[in-house]
Amino acid sequence: MIIIGIDPGTATTGYGIIKIPDDILGREFKYDIELVTYGNISTPKEKLMQDRLHMIYSQLNAVIEKHKPDQMVCEMLFFGANTRTAIMVGQARGVIMLTAAKYRIPFQDYTGLQVKLMVAGSGRADKNQVHDGVRKFLGTPDRRKNKLKSYWKGGHLDDATDALAIAICHILKMVAK
Amino acid sequence: MIIIGIDPGTATTGYGIIKIPDDILGREFKYDIELVTYGNISTPKEKLMQDRLHMIYSQLNAVIEKHKPDQMVCEMLFFGANTRTAIMVGQARGVIMLTAAKYRIPFQDYTGLQVKLMVAGSGRADKNQVHDGVRKFLGTPDRRKNKLKSYWKGGHLDDATDALAIAICHILKMVAK
Repeated sequence: MIIIGIDPGTATTGYGIIKIPDDILGREFKYDIELVTYGNISTPKEKLMQDRLHMIYSQLNAVIEKHKPDQMVCEMLFFGANTRTAIMVGQARGVIMLTAAKYRIPFQDYTGLQVKLMVAGSGRADKNQVHDGVRKFLGTPDRRKNKLKSYWKGGHLDDATDALAIAICHILKMVAK
Repeated sequence: MIIIGIDPGTATTGYGIIKIPDDILGREFKYDIELVTYGNISTPKEKLMQDRLHMIYSQLNAVIEKHKPDQMVCEMLFFGANTRTAIMVGQARGVIMLTAAKYRIPFQDYTGLQVKLMVAGSGRADKNQVHDGVRKFLGTPDRRKNKLKSYWKGGHLDDATDALAIAICHILKMVAK
């Protein structure tokens, strides 16, 4: 089963794709999560908003066609955002959800709180602790570790890492059911 | 010049299309606004959100292909909405703006305050006063009046009327420049 996690934003939409064995339910799964790929879709500030949304849409379409995920999960803001921020994130979410509908991929939301709880073990975890959690789930024990390490050195893919955290959260929720 | 106004929403997205002579600038224009069409794109609550967004997207695409508007204008929320409402409206706006980008139609936003000021003459105008303004601009003096009247009797197309108000606001702003 292939899962794409998405951290939506107009300036940067991060995505992370992971793969788990189809028979994962009910067994020791921690080291069976395979990192497929991750990346950021960034759009230039100078562009018109509708063109930036179109960039997110078409690049996400390309990612979906290449990796054919079975499920899509996305971060949902609930509180604390001002109206303008919420509208902007909503607009990015709109084209992301449209992609899910177009390819008939089941879509689900998680709040930041759920992701922190599941991936870092605490709803008060900071970004570094969440990223440590992502490393823990994806970084053992073979070459995938190095693949992830080399990217972490770059240190500029926060949104992609958040997206991986959302995807991992989804797996943990599925397994916990 | 053909203008489509849009009042975005997940449950109902209203649209209204009007046409003005290309040489409208600088002359008496009030009775030169032609009502082309108006309608609601409604989506059932029971459907998944991504499928509702897909319905808005594909039905709006069909409207655009039929009427080929030169400009698209949309209502923008700025303040006073809670995060969840703003996200929902943002999602609908996302697929609407994507449509504008897809067909390369210039896109512009107006706030509710701007629409009230331009169409009803006061920022404190209520919905009825805005709708009276729409009638004033579109309802004279020929059969278009009756076309509009018959629809008003139905009284169930508030969102489409708001969309017409946004389109009229755009024309008034253009003429005022």
